[in-house]
Amino acid sequence: MKQRISELLKKTREENPLVHHITNAVTINDCANATLAAGGSPVMADAIEEVEEMTSISSALVINFGTIKKESLAAMEKAMKKANEKGIPVIFDPVGVGATTYRTKSAQWLLEQVKVTVIRGNVSEVASLIGVEAKTSGVDAGEVGEDKTTIAKKTAKKYNTVVVISGEIDVITDGERVVYVENGHQMLTRVSGTGCMTASIIGCFVGASGSVLEGAIAGISYMGLAGERAVKRLKEGEGVGTFKINLFDELSTLKSTTWEKEVKMYEARQPIL
Amino acid sequence: MKQRISELLKKTREENPLVHHITNAVTINDCANATLAAGGSPVMADAIEEVEEMTSISSALVINFGTIKKESLAAMEKAMKKANEKGIPVIFDPVGVGATTYRTKSAQWLLEQVKVTVIRGNVSEVASLIGVEAKTSGVDAGEVGEDKTTIAKKTAKKYNTVVVISGEIDVITDGERVVYVENGHQMLTRVSGTGCMTASIIGCFVGASGSVLEGAIAGISYMGLAGERAVKRLKEGEGVGTFKINLFDELSTLKSTTWEKEVKMYEARQPIL
Amino acid sequence: MKQRISELLKKTREENPLVHHITNAVTINDCANATLAAGGSPVMADAIEEVEEMTSISSALVINFGTIKKESLAAMEKAMKKANEKGIPVIFDPVGVGATTYRTKSAQWLLEQVKVTVIRGNVSEVASLIGVEAKTSGVDAGEVGEDKTTIAKKTAKKYNTVVVISGEIDVITDGERVVYVENGHQMLTRVSGTGCMTASIIGCFVGASGSVLEGAIAGISYMGLAGERAVKRLKEGEGVGTFKINLFDELSTLKSTTWEKEVKMYEARQPIL
Repeated sequence: MKQRISELLKKTREENPLVHHITNAVTINDCANATLAAGGSPVMADAIEEVEEMTSISSALVINFGTIKKESLAAMEKAMKKANEKGIPVIFDPVGVGATTYRTKSAQWLLEQVKVTVIRGNVSEVASLIGVEAKTSGVDAGEVGEDKTTIAKKTAKKYNTVVVISGEIDVITDGERVVYVENGHQMLTRVSGTGCMTASIIGCFVGASGSVLEGAIAGISYMGLAGERAVKRLKEGEGVGTFKINLFDELSTLKSTTWEKEVKMYEARQPIL
Repeated sequence: MKQRISELLKKTREENPLVHHITNAVTINDCANATLAAGGSPVMADAIEEVEEMTSISSALVINFGTIKKESLAAMEKAMKKANEKGIPVIFDPVGVGATTYRTKSAQWLLEQVKVTVIRGNVSEVASLIGVEAKTSGVDAGEVGEDKTTIAKKTAKKYNTVVVISGEIDVITDGERVVYVENGHQMLTRVSGTGCMTASIIGCFVGASGSVLEGAIAGISYMGLAGERAVKRLKEGEGVGTFKINLFDELSTLKSTTWEKEVKMYEARQPIL
Repeated sequence: MKQRISELLKKTREENPLVHHITNAVTINDCANATLAAGGSPVMADAIEEVEEMTSISSALVINFGTIKKESLAAMEKAMKKANEKGIPVIFDPVGVGATTYRTKSAQWLLEQVKVTVIRGNVSEVASLIGVEAKTSGVDAGEVGEDKTTIAKKTAKKYNTVVVISGEIDVITDGERVVYVENGHQMLTRVSGTGCMTASIIGCFVGASGSVLEGAIAGISYMGLAGERAVKRLKEGEGVGTFKINLFDELSTLKSTTWEKEVKMYEARQPIL
């Protein structure tokens, strides 16, 4: 699997898959630049009049819930239905789901209307999709316990999708196979948008890939590894400003050979070779 | 007071107050990252269906007028009324008020419907709230004259709020007590968003504080000092790009002990000890 | 001409022309900062209630199609009509036109309602405005062939405007005179927003200028040269993050004397002296 993902990283830079985003106002620029950095070609368009046509010419659709409104939800539904019709993969990032009833109900409603290919969120967001109240802080802060894996698997099965739960240890599952990724750094939580960018990058790799599970693993580990490397380059007195610049530098220069050497992924707590 | 503000800077980093923003499209990402850098936790949400619930779980509400529209004004009113009901502090940044009739009338209308805790703006924006035409360039460019202090005090009394007027010398008043802050640098006016970020940071400190006046002073001086220090780190050939990165570095690493040493604040033109 | 453009760069920094933008959600912050860096003063406002008043006090209006919607189109039409009435120059950036029917038809409709002063886009966007299907990749990648120049001239004549086609070699024409600019670097295509920022910078220079053609040449060459210089400052291991920071550093520090020395512009393939 490592070999195939490594090939995928290279292939994405050659193919420049068009990734259509209907996303939030906070991190929309970061998502565009992260898509470019990973080798994709971003297009952001949310007018209901054009979303179907834009999705139709894209290799993947990224739906991000950061700043949803009635109008954007309608555009999301339309674009997602078109993606389903055409067999175009849909990455769903349920930002903030669980925080308000409106977000939770909107996400659940959307998942009843359409099929998504990958769901990426933190544990409390994903848990909210299946009606579970997550002990967010406990689970996020510590070990991969049964809870996190169980939530990921249940969600994957319920919605027939690949689920990525971001955290100190990331969990990726298609409902059967479970893969853990241990790259990343706490600094990634100190700048806005790294979760959203991960969804965009997953969009690039799934858009260029034959395997959804591998595209999802590629995306989350690529961001984690870039984050780790960005922290290592920080000098005395530098903070989140320089970290974010380093992160974009790494996202745009990370080689597949470096990824192969430095990725920490395993199944059932065994390193994957 | 310096001692208490210094404690507040530390406390904010420990408590990570949730700061709900209904803000503009231009600097929304900067506001999210500034909130994180100062120790807060940002959430941006402006759907009318969810703003009340989001405000209810927050420690402060930041209302920014940068790119208002009919829909956002309605969401602002709703969120602010909920904040008033729950005793959650509201920071109001009247961006661009005075430039168009629509902005001025919308701001005045909003201030009649709801109570705000802190108003932060430049002198012409604040003056427009009380129907005074400000000689902006003259006042902003030079000394703290009677005009600026008078405008701040009048506005504070009229709306029963703390007023922060940003400028070469910042004026902070609750209508009685007046504090001046002399930190800052002209470079802060050469990048977009430093005013908006100041309002966000005031939101963090007021959200974590018992004293609104002290939280407001903390916010404006924190930004000014970070700006000063960011300029000092600039090297030959570097411009606004590096300055903004340095600014975020400083915002995220500035220690309360450094703030204590380098802040320049005084009442009635006497240094405050 | 070089001498007059060089003077224009200085004059813009002294006059700080107010540039009203109705623009997209992706690069709105970059456009604000690019306007500041080039010496202008940006204002972003798209509420239909205030766009006429905001345009009336501005030196130029920039209309960017990146994330159009029904509401923003209505605001654009209103602001552009006011600009026409007052003789305020309008810069039109047809982002993504050609990609969907909605964009193409909206742009063509708008150009029938109002007069624009400068159109800036890549070759396929500009070609779509006159109903020509552009062989985008071929034309963009290579030499300035007849096609690109022909498209620019036809569009300029049809809409009685100056046309700027960005690419490896930029083409600027008022329909008669054609100027080519050879500054720039491929890295400018690897970060989001450099095209949008170019339109904003053209807005600054045209807003401060007596000559539209010279303002347009100033804008496109200023961005190209800043991009070139930003690449030269990149060190080992640095990527798109640092490039974008360097770009803003250059945009804010580029001297008119440096521009005079390093600009590569010519007519009819002869260097312009």
